[in-house]
Amino acid sequence: MRVRRVRGAYEALVEKKPYFIENPEALKGKWRTCFGNDNPIHAEFGGGKGRFIVNMAKKYPNINFIMVDAVTEIALKAAELMVNEAPSNVRLILLDLVKVESVFEAAELERIYLNFSDPWPKKKHYKRRLTHRLFLERYKHVLKPEGWIHFKTDNRTLFEFSLNEFAALDLKMQNIALDLHANPIPDNVMTEYEEKFSSLGHPIFRVEATFRT
Amino acid sequence: MRVRRVRGAYEALVEKKPYFIENPEALKGKWRTCFGNDNPIHAEFGGGKGRFIVNMAKKYPNINFIMVDAVTEIALKAAELMVNEAPSNVRLILLDLVKVESVFEAAELERIYLNFSDPWPKKKHYKRRLTHRLFLERYKHVLKPEGWIHFKTDNRTLFEFSLNEFAALDLKMQNIALDLHANPIPDNVMTEYEEKFSSLGHPIFRVEATFRT
Repeated sequence: MRVRRVRGAYEALVEKKPYFIENPEALKGKWRTCFGNDNPIHAEFGGGKGRFIVNMAKKYPNINFIMVDAVTEIALKAAELMVNEAPSNVRLILLDLVKVESVFEAAELERIYLNFSDPWPKKKHYKRRLTHRLFLERYKHVLKPEGWIHFKTDNRTLFEFSLNEFAALDLKMQNIALDLHANPIPDNVMTEYEEKFSSLGHPIFRVEATFRT
Repeated sequence: MRVRRVRGAYEALVEKKPYFIENPEALKGKWRTCFGNDNPIHAEFGGGKGRFIVNMAKKYPNINFIMVDAVTEIALKAAELMVNEAPSNVRLILLDLVKVESVFEAAELERIYLNFSDPWPKKKHYKRRLTHRLFLERYKHVLKPEGWIHFKTDNRTLFEFSLNEFAALDLKMQNIALDLHANPIPDNVMTEYEEKFSSLGHPIFRVEATFRT
Protein backbone atom coordinates (compact mmCIF):
# COMPACT_ATOMS: atom_id res chain seq x y z
CA MET A 1 0.00 0.00 0.00
CA ARG A 2 1.15 3.54 -0.64
CA VAL A 3 2.19 5.08 2.65
CA ARG A 4 1.72 8.70 3.58
CA ARG A 5 4.57 9.92 5.78
CA VAL A 6 3.23 11.16 9.09
CA ARG A 7 5.24 13.60 11.18
CA GLY A 8 5.69 12.29 14.68
CA ALA A 9 4.44 8.81 13.76
CA TYR A 10 7.21 7.02 15.60
CA GLU A 11 6.69 9.10 18.74
CA ALA A 12 2.97 8.33 18.60
CA LEU A 13 3.72 4.64 18.15
CA VAL A 14 5.99 4.50 21.18
CA GLU A 15 3.10 5.73 23.31
CA LYS A 16 0.89 2.81 22.34
CA LYS A 17 1.55 0.75 25.43
CA PRO A 18 1.53 -2.11 26.11
CA TYR A 19 1.06 -3.02 22.45
CA PHE A 20 4.11 -1.52 20.79
CA ILE A 21 7.39 -3.12 21.80
CA GLU A 22 10.21 -0.68 21.21
CA ASN A 23 13.17 -3.01 21.71
CA PRO A 24 12.03 -6.45 20.58
CA GLU A 25 15.61 -7.78 20.48
CA ALA A 26 15.59 -7.71 24.28
CA LEU A 27 12.71 -10.21 24.26
CA LYS A 28 14.40 -12.76 22.02
CA GLY A 29 13.80 -16.16 23.59
CA LYS A 30 11.68 -14.51 26.33
CA TRP A 31 8.47 -13.56 24.58
CA ARG A 32 6.49 -15.63 27.05
CA THR A 33 7.55 -13.23 29.82
CA CYS A 34 6.08 -10.39 27.78
CA PHE A 35 2.68 -12.11 27.63
CA GLY A 36 2.89 -13.50 31.17
CA ASN A 37 1.90 -17.01 30.09
CA ASP A 38 3.13 -20.08 28.22
CA ASN A 39 0.60 -19.98 25.40
CA PRO A 40 1.82 -20.64 21.86
CA ILE A 41 2.97 -17.65 19.84
CA HIS A 42 1.70 -16.90 16.34
CA ALA A 43 3.26 -14.06 14.35
CA GLU A 44 1.97 -12.15 11.36
CA PHE A 45 4.77 -10.92 9.11
CA GLY A 46 3.67 -7.76 7.35
CA GLY A 47 0.54 -7.07 9.34
CA GLY A 48 -0.72 -3.93 7.61
CA LYS A 49 -3.42 -2.07 9.49
CA GLY A 50 -3.81 -4.86 12.01
CA ARG A 51 -7.41 -5.98 11.40
CA PHE A 52 -6.40 -9.63 10.99
CA ILE A 53 -4.20 -9.90 14.04
CA VAL A 54 -6.64 -8.03 16.31
CA ASN A 55 -9.54 -10.23 15.23
CA MET A 56 -7.40 -13.35 15.65
CA ALA A 57 -6.35 -12.20 19.13
CA LYS A 58 -9.96 -11.73 20.14
CA LYS A 59 -11.03 -15.02 18.62
CA TYR A 60 -8.19 -17.07 20.13
CA PRO A 61 -7.52 -15.74 23.64
CA ASN A 62 -5.27 -18.71 24.44
CA ILE A 63 -2.78 -17.85 21.73
CA ASN A 64 -0.35 -14.95 21.81
CA PHE A 65 -0.05 -12.89 18.66
CA ILE A 66 2.83 -10.71 17.47
CA MET A 67 2.43 -8.45 14.47
CA VAL A 68 5.56 -7.45 12.58
CA ASP A 69 5.68 -4.62 10.07
CA ALA A 70 8.51 -2.51 8.69
CA VAL A 71 6.62 0.74 8.11
CA THR A 72 6.05 3.11 11.01
CA GLU A 73 2.92 4.75 9.64
CA ILE A 74 1.25 1.40 9.00
CA ALA A 75 2.25 0.05 12.38
CA LEU A 76 0.73 3.16 13.95
CA LYS A 77 -2.66 2.33 12.40
CA ALA A 78 -2.43 -1.18 13.79
CA ALA A 79 -1.39 0.14 17.19
CA GLU A 80 -4.41 2.44 17.27
CA LEU A 81 -6.67 -0.49 16.49
CA MET A 82 -5.08 -2.48 19.30
CA VAL A 83 -5.62 0.37 21.75
CA ASN A 84 -9.26 0.71 20.68
CA GLU A 85 -10.13 -2.99 20.81
CA ALA A 86 -7.72 -3.81 23.64
CA PRO A 87 -7.08 -7.55 23.40
CA SER A 88 -4.49 -8.55 26.02
CA ASN A 89 -2.74 -11.17 23.87
CA VAL A 90 -1.31 -9.12 21.02
CA ARG A 91 1.90 -7.14 20.55
CA LEU A 92 3.39 -5.15 17.69
CA ILE A 93 6.96 -4.63 16.55
CA LEU A 94 8.70 -2.64 13.84
CA LEU A 95 11.20 -4.79 12.03
CA ASP A 96 12.74 -5.47 8.65
CA LEU A 97 12.13 -9.22 8.41
CA VAL A 98 15.65 -9.72 7.10
CA LYS A 99 16.49 -9.47 10.80
CA VAL A 100 13.76 -11.76 12.11
CA GLU A 101 16.31 -13.99 13.80
CA SER A 102 17.46 -11.08 15.96
CA VAL A 103 14.02 -10.95 17.58
CA PHE A 104 12.91 -14.58 17.83
CA GLU A 105 14.81 -17.52 19.24
CA ALA A 106 14.98 -20.78 17.30
CA ALA A 107 11.57 -22.48 17.35
CA GLU A 108 10.00 -19.66 19.36
CA LEU A 109 7.05 -19.30 16.96
CA GLU A 110 4.34 -21.89 16.51
CA ARG A 111 2.84 -20.35 13.40
CA ILE A 112 3.58 -17.60 10.86
CA TYR A 113 0.91 -15.74 8.92
CA LEU A 114 1.71 -13.98 5.66
CA ASN A 115 -1.30 -12.04 4.41
CA PHE A 116 -1.38 -10.12 1.16
CA SER A 117 2.35 -9.53 1.20
CA ASP A 118 3.81 -6.93 -1.14
CA PRO A 119 4.08 -8.64 -4.56
CA TRP A 120 7.26 -6.78 -5.59
CA PRO A 121 6.50 -7.27 -9.29
CA LYS A 122 9.90 -6.36 -10.71
CA LYS A 123 12.33 -9.20 -11.15
CA LYS A 124 15.16 -7.27 -9.50
CA HIS A 125 12.99 -7.06 -6.35
CA TYR A 126 12.00 -10.73 -6.08
CA LYS A 127 14.36 -11.15 -3.16
CA ARG A 128 12.15 -8.80 -1.17
CA ARG A 129 9.11 -11.04 -1.52
CA LEU A 130 8.32 -12.46 1.90
CA THR A 131 8.02 -15.95 0.41
CA HIS A 132 11.43 -15.80 -1.30
CA ARG A 133 13.59 -18.74 -0.28
CA LEU A 134 15.99 -16.42 1.57
CA PHE A 135 13.13 -15.41 3.85
CA LEU A 136 11.86 -18.97 4.13
CA GLU A 137 15.25 -20.09 5.39
CA ARG A 138 15.01 -17.46 8.14
CA TYR A 139 11.46 -18.49 9.02
CA LYS A 140 12.59 -22.09 9.28
CA HIS A 141 14.91 -21.08 12.06
CA VAL A 142 12.36 -19.22 14.20
CA LEU A 143 9.44 -21.57 13.50
CA LYS A 144 8.87 -24.66 15.62
CA PRO A 145 9.40 -27.99 13.87
CA GLU A 146 5.96 -28.89 12.49
CA GLY A 147 4.87 -25.27 12.80
CA TRP A 148 3.01 -24.00 9.76
CA ILE A 149 3.15 -20.95 7.54
CA HIS A 150 -0.33 -19.76 6.49
CA PHE A 151 -0.15 -17.62 3.36
CA LYS A 152 -2.94 -15.73 1.60
CA THR A 153 -2.83 -13.31 -1.29
CA ASP A 154 -4.97 -11.97 -4.11
CA ASN A 155 -1.90 -11.71 -6.36
CA ARG A 156 -1.68 -14.65 -8.75
CA THR A 157 1.90 -13.96 -9.75
CA LEU A 158 3.04 -13.83 -6.14
CA PHE A 159 1.09 -16.98 -5.31
CA GLU A 160 2.60 -18.87 -8.23
CA PHE A 161 6.07 -17.70 -7.19
CA SER A 162 5.40 -18.75 -3.60
CA LEU A 163 4.17 -22.25 -4.48
CA ASN A 164 7.34 -22.75 -6.50
CA GLU A 165 9.54 -21.46 -3.67
CA PHE A 166 7.81 -23.79 -1.20
CA ALA A 167 8.22 -26.69 -3.64
CA ALA A 168 11.86 -25.84 -4.36
CA LEU A 169 12.66 -25.91 -0.65
CA ASP A 170 10.60 -29.10 -0.34
CA LEU A 171 8.09 -27.79 2.15
CA LYS A 172 4.98 -29.87 2.70
CA MET A 173 1.84 -28.11 1.55
CA GLN A 174 -1.84 -28.54 2.35
CA ASN A 175 -5.19 -26.82 1.93
CA ILE A 176 -4.19 -25.14 -1.31
CA ALA A 177 -6.99 -22.82 -2.46
CA LEU A 178 -7.12 -20.97 -5.77
CA ASP A 179 -10.40 -19.27 -4.91
CA LEU A 180 -10.75 -19.30 -1.16
CA HIS A 181 -14.16 -17.71 -1.04
CA ALA A 182 -15.65 -20.26 -3.44
CA ASN A 183 -15.22 -22.85 -0.68
CA PRO A 184 -14.43 -20.85 2.45
CA ILE A 185 -12.48 -22.61 5.15
CA PRO A 186 -14.15 -22.64 8.54
CA ASP A 187 -12.96 -19.83 10.79
CA ASN A 188 -11.31 -17.80 8.03
CA VAL A 189 -10.42 -14.40 9.49
CA MET A 190 -10.24 -11.74 6.81
CA THR A 191 -7.79 -8.87 6.44
CA GLU A 192 -8.84 -5.42 5.20
CA TYR A 193 -7.44 -6.28 1.78
CA GLU A 194 -9.24 -9.57 1.66
CA GLU A 195 -12.63 -7.99 2.46
CA LYS A 196 -12.08 -5.43 -0.25
CA PHE A 197 -10.78 -7.70 -3.01
CA SER A 198 -13.03 -10.67 -2.38
CA SER A 199 -16.06 -8.36 -2.39
CA LEU A 200 -14.93 -7.23 -5.86
CA GLY A 201 -15.00 -10.87 -6.96
CA HIS A 202 -11.21 -11.32 -7.15
CA PRO A 203 -10.13 -14.83 -6.19
CA ILE A 204 -8.08 -15.15 -3.03
CA PHE A 205 -5.27 -17.71 -3.06
CA ARG A 206 -4.21 -19.56 0.08
CA VAL A 207 -1.83 -22.32 1.14
CA GLU A 208 -0.41 -23.79 4.33
CA ALA A 209 3.19 -24.98 4.29
CA THR A 210 5.58 -26.56 6.75
CA PHE A 211 9.25 -27.48 6.70
CA ARG A 212 10.17 -31.14 6.78
CA THR A 213 11.96 -32.10 9.96
CA MET B 1 -16.10 -32.99 -24.62
CA ARG B 2 -19.54 -34.10 -25.74
CA VAL B 3 -19.18 -37.16 -27.91
CA ARG B 4 -21.37 -37.98 -30.87
CA ARG B 5 -21.83 -41.74 -31.23
CA VAL B 6 -20.57 -42.89 -34.59
CA ARG B 7 -21.83 -46.14 -36.09
CA GLY B 8 -18.93 -48.35 -37.05
CA ALA B 9 -16.40 -46.23 -35.14
CA TYR B 10 -14.69 -49.21 -33.55
CA GLU B 11 -14.43 -51.03 -36.86
CA ALA B 12 -12.91 -47.92 -38.42
CA LEU B 13 -10.49 -47.60 -35.52
CA VAL B 14 -9.27 -51.18 -35.88
CA GLU B 15 -8.27 -50.41 -39.47
CA LYS B 16 -5.93 -47.61 -38.40
CA LYS B 17 -2.76 -49.65 -38.54
CA PRO B 18 -0.13 -49.55 -37.20
CA TYR B 19 -1.36 -46.83 -34.85
CA PHE B 20 -4.28 -48.46 -33.09
CA ILE B 21 -3.34 -51.37 -30.85
CA GLU B 22 -6.33 -53.61 -30.39
CA ASN B 23 -5.02 -55.83 -27.59
CA PRO B 24 -2.68 -53.69 -25.53
CA GLU B 25 -2.65 -56.19 -22.63
CA ALA B 26 -0.55 -58.47 -24.84
CA LEU B 27 2.16 -55.80 -24.95
CA LYS B 28 2.42 -55.32 -21.19
CA GLY B 29 6.13 -55.23 -20.38
CA LYS B 30 6.96 -55.50 -24.10
CA TRP B 31 6.08 -52.11 -25.51
CA ARG B 32 9.62 -51.71 -26.77
CA THR B 33 9.03 -54.59 -29.16
CA CYS B 34 6.06 -52.70 -30.56
CA PHE B 35 8.23 -49.67 -31.37
CA GLY B 36 11.26 -51.71 -32.39
CA ASN B 37 13.66 -49.70 -30.24
CA ASP B 38 14.65 -49.01 -26.65
CA ASN B 39 13.65 -45.38 -26.56
CA PRO B 40 11.83 -44.07 -23.47
CA ILE B 41 8.05 -44.26 -23.48
CA HIS B 42 5.82 -41.30 -22.68
CA ALA B 43 2.07 -41.79 -22.39
CA GLU B 44 -0.78 -39.31 -22.57
CA PHE B 45 -3.75 -40.35 -20.45
CA GLY B 46 -6.91 -38.96 -21.99
CA GLY B 47 -5.50 -37.84 -25.31
CA GLY B 48 -8.58 -36.36 -26.95
CA LYS B 49 -8.25 -35.68 -30.65
CA GLY B 50 -4.53 -36.42 -30.61
CA ARG B 51 -3.06 -33.05 -31.61
CA PHE B 52 -0.72 -32.97 -28.62
CA ILE B 53 0.63 -36.49 -28.95
CA VAL B 54 1.13 -36.26 -32.71
CA ASN B 55 3.00 -32.99 -32.41
CA MET B 56 5.09 -34.38 -29.58
CA ALA B 57 5.90 -37.48 -31.64
CA LYS B 58 7.05 -35.35 -34.54
CA LYS B 59 9.04 -33.04 -32.30
CA TYR B 60 10.74 -35.81 -30.31
CA PRO B 61 11.51 -38.69 -32.70
CA ASN B 62 13.68 -40.42 -30.09
CA ILE B 63 10.81 -40.88 -27.68
CA ASN B 64 7.94 -43.33 -28.09
CA PHE B 65 4.46 -42.01 -27.39
CA ILE B 66 1.34 -43.91 -26.41
CA MET B 67 -2.01 -42.17 -26.30
CA VAL B 68 -4.69 -43.65 -24.08
CA ASP B 69 -8.35 -42.71 -24.29
CA ALA B 70 -11.54 -44.44 -23.19
CA VAL B 71 -13.90 -43.18 -25.88
CA THR B 72 -13.95 -44.88 -29.27
CA GLU B 73 -15.17 -41.88 -31.25
CA ILE B 74 -12.46 -39.63 -29.81
CA ALA B 75 -9.77 -42.21 -30.35
CA LEU B 76 -10.90 -42.49 -33.96
CA LYS B 77 -10.25 -38.78 -34.50
CA ALA B 78 -6.78 -39.19 -33.05
CA ALA B 79 -6.15 -42.28 -35.19
CA GLU B 80 -7.12 -40.37 -38.33
CA LEU B 81 -4.67 -37.63 -37.39
CA MET B 82 -1.93 -40.22 -36.87
CA VAL B 83 -2.63 -41.76 -40.28
CA ASN B 84 -2.54 -38.33 -41.93
CA GLU B 85 0.66 -37.12 -40.27
CA ALA B 86 2.26 -40.54 -40.00
CA PRO B 87 4.87 -40.27 -37.25
CA SER B 88 6.44 -43.70 -36.65
CA ASN B 89 6.80 -43.33 -32.88
CA VAL B 90 3.21 -43.08 -31.71
CA ARG B 91 0.54 -45.65 -30.83
CA LEU B 92 -3.01 -45.43 -29.56
CA ILE B 93 -5.01 -47.62 -27.21
CA LEU B 94 -8.59 -47.67 -25.90
CA LEU B 95 -8.59 -48.17 -22.16
CA ASP B 96 -10.37 -47.23 -18.99
CA LEU B 97 -7.42 -45.97 -16.94
CA VAL B 98 -8.72 -47.84 -13.92
CA LYS B 99 -7.06 -50.76 -15.68
CA VAL B 100 -3.80 -49.02 -16.57
CA GLU B 101 -1.78 -51.66 -14.75
CA SER B 102 -3.13 -54.35 -17.06
CA VAL B 103 -1.40 -52.65 -20.00
CA PHE B 104 1.87 -51.32 -18.58
CA GLU B 105 4.44 -53.16 -16.53
CA ALA B 106 5.84 -51.58 -13.38
CA ALA B 107 8.12 -48.65 -14.31
CA GLU B 108 7.47 -49.12 -18.02
CA LEU B 109 6.63 -45.43 -18.57
CA GLU B 110 9.11 -42.61 -18.28
CA ARG B 111 6.55 -39.82 -18.30
CA ILE B 112 2.77 -39.34 -18.10
CA TYR B 113 0.93 -36.40 -19.64
CA LEU B 114 -2.49 -35.36 -18.41
CA ASN B 115 -3.89 -32.59 -20.57
CA PHE B 116 -7.23 -30.89 -19.94
CA SER B 117 -8.65 -33.92 -18.22
CA ASP B 118 -12.38 -34.10 -17.64
CA PRO B 119 -13.05 -31.97 -14.54
CA TRP B 120 -15.95 -34.14 -13.27
CA PRO B 121 -17.44 -31.23 -11.33
CA LYS B 122 -19.88 -33.18 -9.15
CA LYS B 123 -18.54 -34.32 -5.82
CA LYS B 124 -19.87 -37.86 -6.30
CA HIS B 125 -17.68 -38.10 -9.43
CA TYR B 126 -14.40 -36.86 -7.93
CA LYS B 127 -13.06 -40.40 -8.00
CA ARG B 128 -13.18 -40.28 -11.78
CA ARG B 129 -10.82 -37.31 -11.95
CA LEU B 130 -7.57 -38.51 -13.46
CA THR B 131 -5.61 -36.78 -10.69
CA HIS B 132 -7.60 -38.44 -7.90
CA ARG B 133 -5.30 -40.25 -5.51
CA LEU B 134 -6.70 -43.62 -6.57
CA PHE B 135 -5.44 -42.95 -10.09
CA LEU B 136 -2.17 -41.51 -8.82
CA GLU B 137 -1.48 -44.73 -6.94
CA ARG B 138 -1.92 -46.64 -10.21
CA TYR B 139 0.32 -44.22 -12.09
CA LYS B 140 2.98 -44.64 -9.42
CA HIS B 141 3.14 -48.30 -10.29
CA VAL B 142 3.58 -47.93 -14.06
CA LEU B 143 5.79 -44.83 -13.89
CA LYS B 144 9.55 -45.13 -13.53
CA PRO B 145 11.03 -43.93 -10.25
CA GLU B 146 11.88 -40.27 -10.88
CA GLY B 147 9.51 -40.21 -13.84
CA TRP B 148 7.30 -37.14 -13.95
CA ILE B 149 3.62 -36.44 -14.46
CA HIS B 150 3.03 -33.30 -16.56
CA PHE B 151 -0.44 -31.92 -15.98
CA LYS B 152 -2.18 -29.00 -17.70
CA THR B 153 -5.73 -27.74 -17.47
CA ASP B 154 -7.79 -24.60 -17.88
CA ASN B 155 -10.09 -25.68 -15.05
CA ARG B 156 -9.20 -23.93 -11.81
CA THR B 157 -11.25 -26.23 -9.63
CA LEU B 158 -9.63 -29.32 -11.10
CA PHE B 159 -6.18 -27.77 -10.77
CA GLU B 160 -6.75 -26.87 -7.14
CA PHE B 161 -8.01 -30.39 -6.46
CA SER B 162 -4.98 -31.85 -8.23
CA LEU B 163 -2.43 -29.78 -6.32
CA ASN B 164 -4.03 -30.95 -3.09
CA GLU B 165 -4.01 -34.59 -4.23
CA PHE B 166 -0.33 -34.33 -5.19
CA ALA B 167 0.44 -32.68 -1.84
CA ALA B 168 -1.61 -35.24 0.12
CA LEU B 169 0.34 -38.09 -1.48
CA ASP B 170 3.54 -36.13 -0.89
CA LEU B 171 4.60 -35.89 -4.52
CA LYS B 172 7.36 -33.45 -5.33
CA MET B 173 6.18 -30.60 -7.52
CA GLN B 174 7.96 -28.14 -9.78
CA ASN B 175 7.27 -25.55 -12.47
CA ILE B 176 3.86 -24.67 -11.09
CA ALA B 177 2.15 -22.18 -13.44
CA LEU B 178 -1.13 -20.40 -12.75
CA ASP B 179 -1.10 -18.65 -16.12
CA LEU B 180 1.13 -20.64 -18.42
CA HIS B 181 0.87 -18.32 -21.36
CA ALA B 182 1.91 -15.27 -19.31
CA ASN B 183 5.38 -16.85 -19.06
CA PRO B 184 5.36 -19.69 -21.59
CA ILE B 185 7.75 -22.54 -20.95
CA PRO B 186 10.14 -23.25 -23.80
CA ASP B 187 8.90 -26.01 -26.09
CA ASN B 188 5.32 -25.98 -24.82
CA VAL B 189 3.25 -28.13 -27.17
CA MET B 190 -0.39 -27.10 -27.19
CA THR B 191 -3.49 -29.28 -27.29
CA GLU B 192 -6.61 -28.31 -29.27
CA TYR B 193 -8.26 -27.18 -26.02
CA GLU B 194 -5.26 -25.15 -25.00
CA GLU B 195 -5.15 -23.26 -28.30
CA LYS B 196 -8.82 -22.51 -28.02
CA PHE B 197 -8.95 -21.47 -24.38
CA SER B 198 -5.69 -19.57 -24.21
CA SER B 199 -6.71 -17.60 -27.32
CA LEU B 200 -9.84 -16.59 -25.38
CA GLY B 201 -7.59 -15.26 -22.61
CA HIS B 202 -8.36 -18.02 -20.09
CA PRO B 203 -5.37 -18.85 -17.90
CA ILE B 204 -3.88 -22.30 -18.34
CA PHE B 205 -2.64 -24.04 -15.20
CA ARG B 206 0.28 -26.45 -15.24
CA VAL B 207 2.41 -28.47 -12.84
CA GLU B 208 4.98 -31.25 -12.96
CA ALA B 209 4.92 -33.83 -10.18
CA THR B 210 6.92 -36.91 -9.26
CA PHE B 211 6.62 -39.60 -6.61
CA ARG B 212 9.29 -39.75 -3.93
CA THR B 213 11.33 -42.91 -4.14
